[in-house]
Amino acid sequence: MSIGRLQDRAVELRRMFHRIPEVGFTEFITTYEIYKALEKKDFTLFIGEEAISREHRYGVPDQQAIEASRQRASEYGVPEAFLEKMADGATGLVAVFDTGRPGPHVAMRSDIDGLPIMEAEDAPHMPAADGYRSVHEGEMHACGHDGHISIGLAVAAYINENQNQLSGRFTLIFQPAEEGGRGARSVVEKGWLDDVDYFMSGHLGINEYEAGTVSAMTERFLASTKLDVSFKGKSAHSGVEPNEGKNALLAAASASLHLHSISRHRDGATRVNVGTLNAGSGRNVVADHSELKMETRGGTNALNEYMMSEARRILEASALIYDVEYETAFMGNAIVAECDEEWVDIVKTANREEANGFNIMDTMPLKASEDVTYMIDRVQKNGGLATFMIFASPLKAGHHHPSFDFDEQAIRTAVSVYASIILHLANNHTEKEYTSYE
Amino acid sequence: MSIGRLQDRAVELRRMFHRIPEVGFTEFITTYEIYKALEKKDFTLFIGEEAISREHRYGVPDQQAIEASRQRASEYGVPEAFLEKMADGATGLVAVFDTGRPGPHVAMRSDIDGLPIMEAEDAPHMPAADGYRSVHEGEMHACGHDGHISIGLAVAAYINENQNQLSGRFTLIFQPAEEGGRGARSVVEKGWLDDVDYFMSGHLGINEYEAGTVSAMTERFLASTKLDVSFKGKSAHSGVEPNEGKNALLAAASASLHLHSISRHRDGATRVNVGTLNAGSGRNVVADHSELKMETRGGTNALNEYMMSEARRILEASALIYDVEYETAFMGNAIVAECDEEWVDIVKTANREEANGFNIMDTMPLKASEDVTYMIDRVQKNGGLATFMIFASPLKAGHHHPSFDFDEQAIRTAVSVYASIILHLANNHTEKEYTSYE
Amino acid sequence: MSIGRLQDRAVELRRMFHRIPEVGFTEFITTYEIYKALEKKDFTLFIGEEAISREHRYGVPDQQAIEASRQRASEYGVPEAFLEKMADGATGLVAVFDTGRPGPHVAMRSDIDGLPIMEAEDAPHMPAADGYRSVHEGEMHACGHDGHISIGLAVAAYINENQNQLSGRFTLIFQPAEEGGRGARSVVEKGWLDDVDYFMSGHLGINEYEAGTVSAMTERFLASTKLDVSFKGKSAHSGVEPNEGKNALLAAASASLHLHSISRHRDGATRVNVGTLNAGSGRNVVADHSELKMETRGGTNALNEYMMSEARRILEASALIYDVEYETAFMGNAIVAECDEEWVDIVKTANREEANGFNIMDTMPLKASEDVTYMIDRVQKNGGLATFMIFASPLKAGHHHPSFDFDEQAIRTAVSVYASIILHLANNHTEKEYTSYE
Amino acid sequence: MSIGRLQDRAVELRRMFHRIPEVGFTEFITTYEIYKALEKKDFTLFIGEEAISREHRYGVPDQQAIEASRQRASEYGVPEAFLEKMADGATGLVAVFDTGRPGPHVAMRSDIDGLPIMEAEDAPHMPAADGYRSVHEGEMHACGHDGHISIGLAVAAYINENQNQLSGRFTLIFQPAEEGGRGARSVVEKGWLDDVDYFMSGHLGINEYEAGTVSAMTERFLASTKLDVSFKGKSAHSGVEPNEGKNALLAAASASLHLHSISRHRDGATRVNVGTLNAGSGRNVVADHSELKMETRGGTNALNEYMMSEARRILEASALIYDVEYETAFMGNAIVAECDEEWVDIVKTANREEANGFNIMDTMPLKASEDVTYMIDRVQKNGGLATFMIFASPLKAGHHHPSFDFDEQAIRTAVSVYASIILHLANNHTEKEYTSYE
Repeated sequence: MSIGRLQDRAVELRRMFHRIPEVGFTEFITTYEIYKALEKKDFTLFIGEEAISREHRYGVPDQQAIEASRQRASEYGVPEAFLEKMADGATGLVAVFDTGRPGPHVAMRSDIDGLPIMEAEDAPHMPAADGYRSVHEGEMHACGHDGHISIGLAVAAYINENQNQLSGRFTLIFQPAEEGGRGARSVVEKGWLDDVDYFMSGHLGINEYEAGTVSAMTERFLASTKLDVSFKGKSAHSGVEPNEGKNALLAAASASLHLHSISRHRDGATRVNVGTLNAGSGRNVVADHSELKMETRGGTNALNEYMMSEARRILEASALIYDVEYETAFMGNAIVAECDEEWVDIVKTANREEANGFNIMDTMPLKASEDVTYMIDRVQKNGGLATFMIFASPLKAGHHHPSFDFDEQAIRTAVSVYASIILHLANNHTEKEYTSYE
Repeated sequence: MSIGRLQDRAVELRRMFHRIPEVGFTEFITTYEIYKALEKKDFTLFIGEEAISREHRYGVPDQQAIEASRQRASEYGVPEAFLEKMADGATGLVAVFDTGRPGPHVAMRSDIDGLPIMEAEDAPHMPAADGYRSVHEGEMHACGHDGHISIGLAVAAYINENQNQLSGRFTLIFQPAEEGGRGARSVVEKGWLDDVDYFMSGHLGINEYEAGTVSAMTERFLASTKLDVSFKGKSAHSGVEPNEGKNALLAAASASLHLHSISRHRDGATRVNVGTLNAGSGRNVVADHSELKMETRGGTNALNEYMMSEARRILEASALIYDVEYETAFMGNAIVAECDEEWVDIVKTANREEANGFNIMDTMPLKASEDVTYMIDRVQKNGGLATFMIFASPLKAGHHHPSFDFDEQAIRTAVSVYASIILHLANNHTEKEYTSYE
Repeated sequence: MSIGRLQDRAVELRRMFHRIPEVGFTEFITTYEIYKALEKKDFTLFIGEEAISREHRYGVPDQQAIEASRQRASEYGVPEAFLEKMADGATGLVAVFDTGRPGPHVAMRSDIDGLPIMEAEDAPHMPAADGYRSVHEGEMHACGHDGHISIGLAVAAYINENQNQLSGRFTLIFQPAEEGGRGARSVVEKGWLDDVDYFMSGHLGINEYEAGTVSAMTERFLASTKLDVSFKGKSAHSGVEPNEGKNALLAAASASLHLHSISRHRDGATRVNVGTLNAGSGRNVVADHSELKMETRGGTNALNEYMMSEARRILEASALIYDVEYETAFMGNAIVAECDEEWVDIVKTANREEANGFNIMDTMPLKASEDVTYMIDRVQKNGGLATFMIFASPLKAGHHHPSFDFDEQAIRTAVSVYASIILHLANNHTEKEYTSYE
Repeated sequence: MSIGRLQDRAVELRRMFHRIPEVGFTEFITTYEIYKALEKKDFTLFIGEEAISREHRYGVPDQQAIEASRQRASEYGVPEAFLEKMADGATGLVAVFDTGRPGPHVAMRSDIDGLPIMEAEDAPHMPAADGYRSVHEGEMHACGHDGHISIGLAVAAYINENQNQLSGRFTLIFQPAEEGGRGARSVVEKGWLDDVDYFMSGHLGINEYEAGTVSAMTERFLASTKLDVSFKGKSAHSGVEPNEGKNALLAAASASLHLHSISRHRDGATRVNVGTLNAGSGRNVVADHSELKMETRGGTNALNEYMMSEARRILEASALIYDVEYETAFMGNAIVAECDEEWVDIVKTANREEANGFNIMDTMPLKASEDVTYMIDRVQKNGGLATFMIFASPLKAGHHHPSFDFDEQAIRTAVSVYASIILHLANNHTEKEYTSYE
């Protein structure tokens, strides 16, 4: 299959995956479809506890939500035995291929989860107009991970078809639950990144250049921590004896306001968001419970820690104002990472060697959080070189928006870029003694 | 049937109704059971648009909630034709009996709705221990309306059995949706109270005296207004471009805090409560929507209007702080009323005549809101005498609490009190020329 | 001197005192003028530590403020020796007269302090138009205590002139620092109220009836506690390193909002007010200090304690939100008291006996706080009868307003009422064996 | 006088000026001392309306404050005629010297105002220990402007002594009221910067390196806007009728909280600070007035405008919450500017030519606001080259702190740097035809 055919197939697959978004740790159908796309190829496939460490997942949905998605997957046709391996939301897949020839260990990561967003239904939104809008109401691929999966599968096909020209080993990671920084660590702790020489990953969109513009590295990751907070007060009839209540709704409201007023910091960018607040059960009852989903971010790990430290004190104080109890649950984390500059040369050279003609920029800012940073960190700690590329595209609406969409030409670009890098690395690995996996 | 048997039957019915609570304007099963209890008696029964004015209902649940309850009622065995008459949540029933003999028009109101509260499951809670806990999970008779229904039905049975000793007319109103002050006006606007001479109603519990203690009147009603508020902002990625968002969550949080800080008033008791707040859809998205359920109250209508006037300005200002839009929906109202002092003599005399031996107090405070005030107001405007009695009882937990329960002896008390009043009125109506309804 | 002359003189004196208002515990000139008005009469006069207990004063101004007022008094002509006795703000005066004949011990209290309010300068304000506006800029008799002093002096003149018709003893208390509930306890702890048989006091204005309307008792006192609060944070350059600051201004702002949102109480009236907030020293500096002057009130002592208990927790929590330190200083207190109903008969009978023709009402609501309650409480504990009357008047503007003024006819009314009571008590004291003071 | 002697003299003068700090637009004594230091030299001196444009000053103190400082200056010995020229706070001085020889027009700016800070009194604070602590209680040179003045005077002495070696013209600006961004525009609008070829200025401290470390340029100025805000409500007795009040204190408190919660911005650094809040006049009065001093900042002019736009809406909304009126007064502004890179070469070359041996860095971040940006902007618009240097120093405490102090060696460094630049420019101005000022 030519690169052109691989690209066509990637676009087809992207539309298929776009229809079946599943939020983090419920990617049962998604994992199964990835499995089906790879099972005839020469990769060894790992799923469930073989792929990820259940205990190192963050922010796993409650049993009811997992069960509902699993039921949906069962109705979709995913075999029970396959589902059983992913029990309790152990989704995701790792595909490994060893050429048997000495050469570098190259790893690639594709994230596979969707978002809890109701997709736009109106015509200007291409997926709606062309019939591949989400069939899972209330879930949507609104961050391009559908494209990431299909690029990963195209790269797998490329490796499979060109295995005779390649050397070393390849580990393709289809990571669950990137949103909220919840899944990467469960992959890392399984050891997949421990002896990687070249780690590559990337994102569609992010910065709006014409498709064909590629950033070899990414900078300005934001470290981030995700927290669920619950306040527990005491209900009372709001007319008869309001003083008997302990108001958990107001504790949450006050916490939200004060969290958003944490002081800016001398050392750089900080962020805080209370994204959801749900409180109370009846109009005429003093609310006895409330729940927040919140996050902090920072341009450095220290800045994120400053924000989280302020946040924790504010949460304690907000509970004290209203004499209520509170609990926090850690739901996810992302750290800051720096890509290795060697990748600029690799990407540019590969682009030249294959005459791809893409516009390769050294770096672009992300200004957001990505748990791929856990993988980058592990690879670098073990001496490997890691990058996170950006495959720019004009966007119809921002990431996480109900009308989010990108130029599918960026998928084609990414497939070519990854393929050319793989080929380049296969031909340029003399500087180190690689041992075969065997 | 002796009064004793009527009392026993009322307690049995109360436990039956306790198992099937339905929130306001979804009392399909409840209305049907009331119907079944009355259909063999000599009352003319009115349901649906014949009983209430659909357009004068406040805070009707959304179509989906009504449909779910109707479906449940259908599965319970309520005939489709019966349900059809109550389409769109036109629940409740009015039973009319005319003796054909000149005499006063006596009306009685019983409210029939439950609350959206998950009933306690633990043993000390009698309904749980004795097997009549709610089978409608998340709904509960936590304010004694199950008792009110059964008292109303016992009074109907009493009238039916003693019709030969009685004169004048009787109108028994089984009102839907008292909670939130949503149903009374839809009854009043139908005209049922327009020519009532004696209007009686009452509440179980409220003040904790031994059962057998009865207040002939009630004072300190609180006027109240119920409002739903929604804020509509603009979502944005909280890490990438927080400034692009318009934060509806913070608008709701700020509104809640400021509503609760409306100044106390020189002229008496005021109340405000934001009972529920729901905002946002994702942790890392600036929340683009939020909803509040709130209410104000006042010891006088003017005090309630002061609170609502302050509240409306605060809602407008809260939207302005965060540059978001907002809407309010009127969801219910109750006014202040004063019972007619003549009832003290009526209740005490009837108590003496029948040698009931109850401890009759002149009045007790309610300190809450009741839309029966709309009925009292209408009756008094047309020259009738109205009261709202209290049948006191020790309480296991406050009204609207998951463990709310009362001493069923208070039901027996109420049945006797109403019966003795009816008998008394039948024998003491010389002061006015009553015309037969015919 | 006839009652009419005493009344004329009282009005003259009122205008004189109106010109020289002094805030609590700085009434140096005021005390001296009272002294001068009494020194030629047959009273024994007590000032300084002889009159009040320095250590039981609340909310004494700082040394600088006391010194400035003392200096002003010195310039006014108050002798140094006289000032020395009042050193450290021990202002106020007690005048005692013993007829030497058996009879009741009658005490009367007049409060003498002004308020830190800038008096209106415009013509419709009578003191401005007629030339007796405050000459102490920023201080004002805006609560009628100028009238209270002059009434007290007229009563002293009446006793002095009519001493041969009277029996028993008289204690006239000119109490400092009523505003803020700061002075009464310092008088009470000196023992002046310990053996009082009849205690009378009163207030001009309060309820707007025509002058000549008098309430024999007062109800609905509010218990109250006064607190000064200071927050201490850490300053930092708000542009360079805002995160280094600990923001005491925001702590005070947040405390203020939350204090005003303390829940209303089932049991009755509550109040809270943050009256002043001062924070920060420069626009571009994170504020490192802030100060609040606040108070709570309640319709019962328990309600006031509820408010204060909530307030203290909120202050602690507000400091925690911003990681600042805080301190509170107790600045004053008033309790709730009930007047003795016997006074209704006394006042009405006296009014009849002297044919005063005033409209005597049994009671009126105060809806405010008065530290006279400490005196009432002490008198009643020792078996005496106490009251606080109201001498109603139309008001040009509310109490504590820069344009506050009352109808001076109310002063004349009060003089007559007190005089008639004294005469009445002198002639009606047979029911008890009174011992002479000697 | 050798450079060493000039340096010694600068340190002496700095200590003298340190003792007499005067806040912006009250620098009467300061201006007079500068005048005295220069009057015997060959400069033409301009003061009052000749130096600055009264109408382009921002945030001029009120008449009372100006008068008090002028009175103090008069007592200090500043002649009345001299004070008269500076009437209404038209402080500051411009000194011009024309060599008469063709050459560049070189301008230098020194800011001269102190801050409203109470200087530390404890021994470790050098000015306190060595006897040159501020004699103006409550005012302090806490930002090094005392050093800036003395450096400017040393440069004047250098020019005067070396005038025969120099060419072109020199304009030395002693600018009033830099704090708060209030004075620069009043100098600019007078035209002093309109034909400047080389504009140099600088700041002591800022970044903590050893003295001797100099930054040739400064980056990361923050644009800033200063606003005074007043809320006007309605007072009422907080116990009697709190509902009658319109609470200006709570409006200011709520505004403060919400201002500090303005969302961070995608495009870079933003700041907001409410530095002072003063509200209310009495504990038991609903506060009818409040005043804020606030500022916003931004890493670009657009970011500052974003903050100010959000702030203005929040102020409007905060007034609406409490139904009070509000007004804002514009009190100062600073814009963002970029230094000309040519200065790196100039400063480094001059340093080399004079063998100063300082450690010259290209640029350092300011992270604060400086109204010198108005001058830089004007110079650049007319084709000149402008810079703002930093003369680093270890600091005992941060800028604007009561214990702020710097290493006086930094003054010596600055004198040498300026002198060497002047000499360098005199010898390297061939690239342009300069016209004599004459």
